[in-house]
Amino acid sequence: MSKAVFTAAITGAIHTPSMSPYLPITPAQIIDDCVASHEAGAAVAHIHVRDPLTGYPTADQTVFRQIATEVKQRCDIILCCTTGGRLGEPVQKRGAVVANLKPELASLNAGSLNFALFHVASKVEKWSFDWEEEYLKSTEDFIFPNTFRTMREFLGLMYENNTKPEFEIYDVGMINNLAFLVHNGIAKKPVYLQFVMGILGGIPATPENLVFLVDTARKQIGDFQFSVCAAGKDQMRMCATSLLLGGNARVGLEDSLYVERGVLAKNSGEQVAKIIRIGRELGVDPATPAEARTILGLKGLDQVNF
Amino acid sequence: MSKAVFTAAITGAIHTPSMSPYLPITPAQIIDDCVASHEAGAAVAHIHVRDPLTGYPTADQTVFRQIATEVKQRCDIILCCTTGGRLGEPVQKRGAVVANLKPELASLNAGSLNFALFHVASKVEKWSFDWEEEYLKSTEDFIFPNTFRTMREFLGLMYENNTKPEFEIYDVGMINNLAFLVHNGIAKKPVYLQFVMGILGGIPATPENLVFLVDTARKQIGDFQFSVCAAGKDQMRMCATSLLLGGNARVGLEDSLYVERGVLAKNSGEQVAKIIRIGRELGVDPATPAEARTILGLKGLDQVNF
Amino acid sequence: MSKAVFTAAITGAIHTPSMSPYLPITPAQIIDDCVASHEAGAAVAHIHVRDPLTGYPTADQTVFRQIATEVKQRCDIILCCTTGGRLGEPVQKRGAVVANLKPELASLNAGSLNFALFHVASKVEKWSFDWEEEYLKSTEDFIFPNTFRTMREFLGLMYENNTKPEFEIYDVGMINNLAFLVHNGIAKKPVYLQFVMGILGGIPATPENLVFLVDTARKQIGDFQFSVCAAGKDQMRMCATSLLLGGNARVGLEDSLYVERGVLAKNSGEQVAKIIRIGRELGVDPATPAEARTILGLKGLDQVNF
Amino acid sequence: MSKAVFTAAITGAIHTPSMSPYLPITPAQIIDDCVASHEAGAAVAHIHVRDPLTGYPTADQTVFRQIATEVKQRCDIILCCTTGGRLGEPVQKRGAVVANLKPELASLNAGSLNFALFHVASKVEKWSFDWEEEYLKSTEDFIFPNTFRTMREFLGLMYENNTKPEFEIYDVGMINNLAFLVHNGIAKKPVYLQFVMGILGGIPATPENLVFLVDTARKQIGDFQFSVCAAGKDQMRMCATSLLLGGNARVGLEDSLYVERGVLAKNSGEQVAKIIRIGRELGVDPATPAEARTILGLKGLDQVNF
Repeated sequence: MSKAVFTAAITGAIHTPSMSPYLPITPAQIIDDCVASHEAGAAVAHIHVRDPLTGYPTADQTVFRQIATEVKQRCDIILCCTTGGRLGEPVQKRGAVVANLKPELASLNAGSLNFALFHVASKVEKWSFDWEEEYLKSTEDFIFPNTFRTMREFLGLMYENNTKPEFEIYDVGMINNLAFLVHNGIAKKPVYLQFVMGILGGIPATPENLVFLVDTARKQIGDFQFSVCAAGKDQMRMCATSLLLGGNARVGLEDSLYVERGVLAKNSGEQVAKIIRIGRELGVDPATPAEARTILGLKGLDQVNF
Repeated sequence: MSKAVFTAAITGAIHTPSMSPYLPITPAQIIDDCVASHEAGAAVAHIHVRDPLTGYPTADQTVFRQIATEVKQRCDIILCCTTGGRLGEPVQKRGAVVANLKPELASLNAGSLNFALFHVASKVEKWSFDWEEEYLKSTEDFIFPNTFRTMREFLGLMYENNTKPEFEIYDVGMINNLAFLVHNGIAKKPVYLQFVMGILGGIPATPENLVFLVDTARKQIGDFQFSVCAAGKDQMRMCATSLLLGGNARVGLEDSLYVERGVLAKNSGEQVAKIIRIGRELGVDPATPAEARTILGLKGLDQVNF
Repeated sequence: MSKAVFTAAITGAIHTPSMSPYLPITPAQIIDDCVASHEAGAAVAHIHVRDPLTGYPTADQTVFRQIATEVKQRCDIILCCTTGGRLGEPVQKRGAVVANLKPELASLNAGSLNFALFHVASKVEKWSFDWEEEYLKSTEDFIFPNTFRTMREFLGLMYENNTKPEFEIYDVGMINNLAFLVHNGIAKKPVYLQFVMGILGGIPATPENLVFLVDTARKQIGDFQFSVCAAGKDQMRMCATSLLLGGNARVGLEDSLYVERGVLAKNSGEQVAKIIRIGRELGVDPATPAEARTILGLKGLDQVNF
Repeated sequence: MSKAVFTAAITGAIHTPSMSPYLPITPAQIIDDCVASHEAGAAVAHIHVRDPLTGYPTADQTVFRQIATEVKQRCDIILCCTTGGRLGEPVQKRGAVVANLKPELASLNAGSLNFALFHVASKVEKWSFDWEEEYLKSTEDFIFPNTFRTMREFLGLMYENNTKPEFEIYDVGMINNLAFLVHNGIAKKPVYLQFVMGILGGIPATPENLVFLVDTARKQIGDFQFSVCAAGKDQMRMCATSLLLGGNARVGLEDSLYVERGVLAKNSGEQVAKIIRIGRELGVDPATPAEARTILGLKGLDQVNF
């Protein structure tokens, strides 16, 4: 049996509270889903934070710390902190969590792209909060900004704090961005890639596209490790494809609110359990957090600042 | 013999005067290269304008008009006006040329990406103008902004003026952007794509990447027409690959300053002549401007506003 | 939920009795596994026959008829009779089962290739029957012969008996063979392809190869239906990939003797159950035999000659 | 400028005299075309022999020797002797030329496939010789036999005579055949592959197929050298694609009788000249025979037995 690292992306900054009553919003909800995902077999929890009252995505450092601390008390799951921030947030603030918590792993978005959610607004019948509709619709004019300078600065920050970057790859050219950073000594190998598929603005979530991404990365970077996540209905299909290609997989309510067609997931742990069932059928066992630390080369939970 | 449309991209907004004494800067130089490209066999000239004194990229409408008018007096080449503008230019100004000149063809960039030139600054030994070095280096923090709203607005403007959009595709996800616009009735088929390869921030210029782009477009859009251009040393190689795949080709000093390794092109016409020689060996003849108008479905030179 | 057709290839002509005590050899064993596979959810059983005493592959028409008749009495599974025959068998004899039983479905191998098993002989420690070792080793010099004339003759025979051909595709060029037959009016659309992967001599069993096969078939044939089977350890992985690509899947002891690493399958039904568990997790339900008849356009069990 | 090895395949065993008055048949004609190809820039001549009176493909060792000897007197071109033989020839006879002439290079077909020419027979209006029509039509039932045993025996013969094998690859699975031979120590690296595209029975001649073959070989074999040839109208297009992918190219009347659409080539040298013109435009220079010997690692003309 081979081992794969399963990640649960708990809440993200894409979905809004009206879309599912199960979307974790409060620190307690986020913490509970980290623990539930751990129990289901996830080795990593990818975390964003939200305003506990409205669910609006924030980067509140106090909330980040609270979540990290309590999760650490309850289990040894690896925390991967986002540096993607919420829509439109200034770049400087997005990295604060790395400096503050010195986590083992943090996301590093490997390029800029349109990141559009406006087309899903029409699917929501009733809004729970004032900010939601405008938040989604405004993305018709939104670019997720990650310039080469941003990437260079984030890398400096992460290496300084011994935090491993997880490179979020939204399209083929971003592999070349990363290869450029590697060849210029700005990013260090071995690198860990998260292929984020199916965002409107990025590469669609199809098996053929994933095969092409993996082949391209092999040609441009040589050895690397990768995981896959996909937006919406393609989540499980693409995660399974990743396992079939020898990769790892990320599920979670950040990426899809469903656990099967028409059935909302009650937490990310349900999705973790499902992809692990698929994995076991295919001869892939979940790596424990300890095994995942070895696989990804992380510094260990005793080296974080929380 | 099949026919291909050859485009000459005369000057662009990427290269700076210090890089080649042959880069057209003044209206007269740009006009002369349009005519030279026409004589060499190009059916389309893709034009940007620059400050005549410093070579700094502008969107000066008077200069655009002067160039368009004089080129029209001297030959029947199709003018494809840029709406890409120069680095950092506000979106509103980029479309003015369409409203003013009502050209037959205009570029429409199909998504946002890092558009980075900073890594080439170190190759220039001596700068002719103050602005050049900073212009290039600043691109470490530059995003070429083309949101879904931008695209929607540009399309409205172009269809209003009966100007055909040439969709500039820099990566795989942008094909999906275009498919989204088509499926939502915002862009009209048949569509004409320009695969722009080899920009740092976009997809690299390799034959396998082009094969994948063409296959992807066929799956997502069905029938379409395409051309290919590529930055720097890969220009001719990728244009030839396009012809081999049944596509059209764009050369010109905007994309590469060279006509062969180590030899600067004296004008875009030299590159046009070269790709046409290659084409003829492969059984592909250049379409005349009249033939290209039929192939691309353009309104004709008598319908422009210059 | 979408539906997929699951096929069980019961015994084949590749594996030999020494390799697994569970390999069905006698008519009763083959019949039982057809029924077990049906109970597990398979809609089709692909059958070869063997000498009941030695397990040597034969094309004994009496045995074929006995199996078909008894299976029909016990369940409504679709029978897909092989026309591949055993190693070295003259072409004429391979088609007899179609004329005799007039089955709903029969395999039609879409080209010639080396079909080599000699490299697995060294893995067997003790031989149960005299013929086995020589049978396997002789394949170093074996070609599976399916010329264009063979294909034309088999097609004539099948269409005459209203038996649908299942085209066994072992490599990319065989898709072109089939396209040639279609374009020349010798094969009729819609066509049903079985991609047979991982035979030494044919295309290896990898997800990227399957993506390429499917893409190629779409380009060359247009609409088509397909299933996938793969030799040995790649069986389940490739069947899952097929489901992810929208295809159908064939498992069974003909293709692999194992149900997971190191665990021999007790019958094909165990493998059917497993791929169906995977399918359900991915949103794919098994088609019943009745549904499969509609999907594949078969004549029905009341039209066969057994 | 990079260098490519250009090969001229002088006469082959596919085309028949009625198809072109320029097809070399007599030793003198074959010799003259070897020399003409050398003058045009070819480094290698791939040779078959024919009956001087009827043009029927033979493997007459006396004729082989006559040709090799006279070509050697007139120029230093590398001779690559076929071991493919004519349709239906017994395997043993096909290798005789290696033992007799001990050439620097010889073809080694890397698998079995249908090799079908019957569909072109209808294009010939008038037959010059009795054997031609039947020869072509009989290929509806023809398999080109190259089993693993054949390959092993040919390799033994070639290594014994210090003749480098040129592996003829007709489909994706044959790369795996070669990888199998390499991994089992039967074939020695570095290996030289000739992708033979567009034979009915093998993989079609398209740029996407060639990209896939090259990518597959890189994955399965690691470093390797390759050349490309293609049947009929795709000859020049595929040879150009090979140069664009960093490969070498084979032209010649064996593969295509034309030099452009509707224009018969007067000899293989015309095709050599054409592909070299294309190459030069793309920055690829022809390797001299001496350079090609270094590139391919050949023993030298002083080590042959003619």
